[in-house]
Parts: sequence; structure tokens; C-alpha cells
Amino acid sequence: MGKVICAGLGPGDPDLMSVRSLRAIEGARNVAYFRKAGRKGQARNLVDGLLPAAVVEHAMEYPVTTEIHFSDPEYNRLLSTFYDQWADTLAELTQSDDVVVLCEGDPFLYGSFMHLYTRLTDRVEMEIIPGITGMSGCWTASGQPITWGDDVLTVLMATLDEDELATRAQNTDALVVMKIGRNLPKLRRALERAGRIEDAWIVQHGTMAQQQVHKLSELTGDVPYFSIVLIHGQGRRP
Amino acid sequence: MGKVICAGLGPGDPDLMSVRSLRAIEGARNVAYFRKAGRKGQARNLVDGLLPAAVVEHAMEYPVTTEIHFSDPEYNRLLSTFYDQWADTLAELTQSDDVVVLCEGDPFLYGSFMHLYTRLTDRVEMEIIPGITGMSGCWTASGQPITWGDDVLTVLMATLDEDELATRAQNTDALVVMKIGRNLPKLRRALERAGRIEDAWIVQHGTMAQQQVHKLSELTGDVPYFSIVLIHGQGRRP
Repeated sequence: MGKVICAGLGPGDPDLMSVRSLRAIEGARNVAYFRKAGRKGQARNLVDGLLPAAVVEHAMEYPVTTEIHFSDPEYNRLLSTFYDQWADTLAELTQSDDVVVLCEGDPFLYGSFMHLYTRLTDRVEMEIIPGITGMSGCWTASGQPITWGDDVLTVLMATLDEDELATRAQNTDALVVMKIGRNLPKLRRALERAGRIEDAWIVQHGTMAQQQVHKLSELTGDVPYFSIVLIHGQGRRP
Repeated sequence: MGKVICAGLGPGDPDLMSVRSLRAIEGARNVAYFRKAGRKGQARNLVDGLLPAAVVEHAMEYPVTTEIHFSDPEYNRLLSTFYDQWADTLAELTQSDDVVVLCEGDPFLYGSFMHLYTRLTDRVEMEIIPGITGMSGCWTASGQPITWGDDVLTVLMATLDEDELATRAQNTDALVVMKIGRNLPKLRRALERAGRIEDAWIVQHGTMAQQQVHKLSELTGDVPYFSIVLIHGQGRRP
């Protein structure tokens, strides 16, 4: 019997994956990864040149990404069926071999693998290899520590409503906001209301070749969904 | 001219350091690390067997850890002088070679290296290699994802006062509390007041051989300062 190994890939630069994830990937006989239909997939991109020649690849293509809002019951039904089916497929593959599931960032922090994990617990053996989070990659890219001393750090999704974003941004020392994309105008309004827009930075493609770091107030144009907005804590330091 | 390379070591298991940190450590000619006087030091322990034979080691021994409270001006004066002197020493070493500074966890998240970083900015070239955070290691060890969907994640230090801990614990989905040690009784009271004590887990030595994971309500006895308390988010999942 094999097991399911979820390999955290880290924030984007392949050199930032852990030694254990690299070893799992280089020895993989089956590899599975999520992607949007019609794309190669970011997780798969990150392991280019690392997979053994004989590996069998399993592309898990989302039936829907942003075409339907997540509050629509149909969204839930489609994704639930998708995860159920892939959980079955991975469990079947472990009858003969290990399967390495590739996960950007850190698998247990807002990761898609978690939906397979809950379905496979008690069915197959699993090993989760943590990864450097996307947010760590971004605050390192910003060139400033994110938290000092007793700073409170809050991590928010920009999908929350404007009032909640504003209140929480006002009530924390350090702030990380994920899932930006089309939520950026709402997030800007919330940070303005919180009086913190001038302290905010936005990092796109953190740790990758196309990395961009801007003060949020100086950025124009659209940004990818996986951009990250940061406000650095200013806590105690000797 | 050399540079200062800060190598994030990750949560404890040496296999969880990044490929880039490992490469920096294996090629180091000078290595520096913080430790408590009289100890070998946890950062130094994590690279046992990885350093080249000819490496020159620089143990940066804290003049004080918990003997004086950090609110005492003397604490501040001692540490400030300590960081100033080591910043000078590292800058001097870069005149002839690179220096690798070892940092547990992720250097820019509540890391000691940050105090050297601010003193060396504009003086020497620096490279910061992020690491898997201690908290990622701990939530992975707990066997449960920390955040789902739009969960709000709050990271707190147990050094905060009880009222603030209670209010913030009540007002978040997922929670991470660091710097536990002697703050544990206060933290327990705060989590009880917030009605969340039964959801809390405590992880000691996460990802290391002596790892222990307990429901906080079932734990008896003291715990190390670097233990981490977790409450897992229960957000949206298809």
C-alpha cells in the first residue's frame, strides 16, 4: 500500500521548497496537481525539470473557478463532486504506489489539498510536508520584517466585506491580505477608512522572476488574485 | 566584498529547510547564530552535520534573556549594545567573505535577525532566505488545516495582557499564540473567558523528534517558551 504525500512547494521560487518536498518530487512515480482547465498550472510549472522521466501525471482540473460565485449552491455541488472523485482516484492509486500531490505555498494554510485531505483521512496513509507560505515570500520580498516584539498579526481574505476589512485593518499591528484580484478597489476603500492606506504594500509574484513590490497608494492597474497586500508591524525593538 | 546571508532554518526538522538555505549552509565560510550563554543553541543544533569542516563559527550570546523584563530600560540598553556590536562584527567580516546567519523559523516573522538587519541596511549587501514558520510546522503536526475559505487568522504573543488575549481570541476564526512558557496560565484563563479553551491545541517541539501534540484542556505541567497554541478555523468548504 502506498500513501498520499502532499508536498508544499513554497512561495514560487523552486529553490525555496524544502529538502523533503524536493526529495518527494524527484522520486515521484505518480504526481497530481490542481489547475484551471486549459492552463499548465502554477504548481506544475514550479516543478519543471524536477520530475523523473517515468512519472505519471494527474492534472486535477477545477470544474469551475470564478465563473460562478462561491455562494451559489451549484458552485458547491460542482466542487464537492470534483473533490470526491479525485479523492477516490488518489485512494485507488495508493493501492499500488505513492502519489505526490503538489501544493503551492503551505498545504494547511488556505490550500486546496485540504479538501482532499478531509475526504481521505481514515482511508489512506497521508504525509503533509509544510511549505514556506506565499505571505512569507512576499514580506521577505518587501525588504521589511512583518512583525516585531508583541505585534498582533492579522491575516484576512480580500473577499470579506468592506466594513469587516476596515475594522480589522484598524485593529491590528501587522496585516496580510490575500485573494486580491478584483477585490482590490474594495480593499483600498477599506484601508483608506482605516487610515492605513499609506502604510500598505502590494507584492505580485513574490520570489519569482516577475516579482513586483509597490506601495499600494502608488500602484495603478489590475493585479493577480494571488497578489498579497502587507502592512508591516512597528513593534518593540531594542 | 561579501554579503550577509540570513538563512531561515524552518520549524525544526532539518529536512524542512529550503534548498537555498541548505546550499548556503553547506557552502558557508563564516556562520553566525544567536544562543543563550552556556547553551549550544537551537539554531546551531539544526545544522549539525551540515557545516563544512573549515567553517568559522560566531556564537552571538545574548547578554540577557528572561532575567530582566523587557520593559526595564536596562534590558533595552544591554540588547541594543549587543546588536550594535554584532552588526559591526558582521559588517567587518563581509570585508573579506560572506557570512551566513542561521535563523530558526522565518527570519522576518518575530526573528532576532531583524535587529541586525535594521542596523546593517545601507551598510552591507544582505540576502534573506525565508523559512517555513514554526507555526506552519505546528499546525501541520496537529493534523488539521489551520484556515479554510475566508477564515480570519490572528497571530498573538502570549506576553500580551489577559484582557487583550481574551478579546482577540473571541474575535477571530483561527488563532495562533506564540511565546507560551510561563504565560500559559494567563493564556488558559483568556481562552476560557473567550469560550474557546476546548478548541485549543498545544504543540511542543513541532516537527522534531520530541514533538508533542495535546488538547490544551488535557495538558498538565509546564511547556517551553517556543510551544505554540492553535485554534483551527472551521470556515467554508465544499
